[in-house]
Amino acid sequence: MAPETRFADELDEINERLLLMGSLAEERIRSAMCALVERDRTMMADIARSDAAINTLQLEVDDRCLKFLALHQPMAVDLRVVVAALRINSDLERIGDLAVNLAEASLRSVAHRLVKRLIDLPRMSELAQWMLHEALDAFVARDVRRAEAVIAQDDLVDALKNQIFRELLTYMLGDPRTIEPAIELILISRHLERVGDHATNIAEDVIFIVEARDVRHHGTDRQEEVR
Amino acid sequence: MAPETRFADELDEINERLLLMGSLAEERIRSAMCALVERDRTMMADIARSDAAINTLQLEVDDRCLKFLALHQPMAVDLRVVVAALRINSDLERIGDLAVNLAEASLRSVAHRLVKRLIDLPRMSELAQWMLHEALDAFVARDVRRAEAVIAQDDLVDALKNQIFRELLTYMLGDPRTIEPAIELILISRHLERVGDHATNIAEDVIFIVEARDVRHHGTDRQEEVR
Repeated sequence: MAPETRFADELDEINERLLLMGSLAEERIRSAMCALVERDRTMMADIARSDAAINTLQLEVDDRCLKFLALHQPMAVDLRVVVAALRINSDLERIGDLAVNLAEASLRSVAHRLVKRLIDLPRMSELAQWMLHEALDAFVARDVRRAEAVIAQDDLVDALKNQIFRELLTYMLGDPRTIEPAIELILISRHLERVGDHATNIAEDVIFIVEARDVRHHGTDRQEEVR
Repeated sequence: MAPETRFADELDEINERLLLMGSLAEERIRSAMCALVERDRTMMADIARSDAAINTLQLEVDDRCLKFLALHQPMAVDLRVVVAALRINSDLERIGDLAVNLAEASLRSVAHRLVKRLIDLPRMSELAQWMLHEALDAFVARDVRRAEAVIAQDDLVDALKNQIFRELLTYMLGDPRTIEPAIELILISRHLERVGDHATNIAEDVIFIVEARDVRHHGTDRQEEVR
């Protein structure tokens, strides 16, 4: 096979595996939230038990990226793609971990009575899943606009997190029996916030690949986030 | 300058900057915890305001790693060092962020009366700082034993986190006025747990550099962690 063909094929293989990891990660977050809403302990335990598939893929992608760097010594955009792939790989693995955390917190929360009907948490989860999905689509299409749209949603995630916190606090202050399960729901909202953060990282990597500029820490330094 | 000299010099520069980031990150966690114990709002606000120094270093290290890969096309251990440097860079930046999160939660918590004298949180923080410090020393010395000692502490971090949770829960159940500040303390314990996680990642990268084996997800799959 011609070296250029092998070069392109190997990059494709890395991309394909990242997308597979992405869809697994998205599905795990979706299932974890579905299990919480349905109070389905079997499903929660299943998700909490293992994220072996994603972990195995992570090791494989890192290994492929390393071999690719050693064998082909890529330059310019190809080098950025591989470095971004290493970073995206780690973001996706963390999202897999967050699904485990989410399922574990859900298991602890369903040991108690239902605090309230869940409305904002599923909304927050849908938003985080959307961000992840769009970030990966932007990665495939090398689409900076779409990546920027993902980054723009981060404030909404933050607003939902604060809203969930204030509401659950009201329940906790009103009835001490809700304290334990409500804390788990607060922790779940933090896990979802981090799913959004990782999706934002992936979107930033898309801009890095296409435009060779690093938009992390750009404009929005942490000053504004203190409340 | 001979190419080999430049090669070594540039790797040294990357290492030096990572160590500088590491000491900044460690110092920020230490200061954040000190501010919490002393209920020093000015100090908290200072830490929450910005982690600009670490963020700037992160961009610089990534940029240096990329240029190094493009220019020198390193192989074997040198390639692993650069890939590990990219990963460690991101871990250190996250620890910087966690110091911001810690200071923000502290600011919210000191708006309320003191829940209890803080004993386990400072212990947990010291442990996390120690893990970070040791992981970076292990990185400098390419010392697998020391890296493994860091990884071994992760269970202790987890135990402290659970202990802090159970104790704060008792306060919350006993007096609703403690609910808000206690939740912030619980969140702080989660931030410290993540500092420990990032230190563990760095330690795993040391083993990866030295032994070319990937110890992530090794033996301890998530099955055991469900409770």
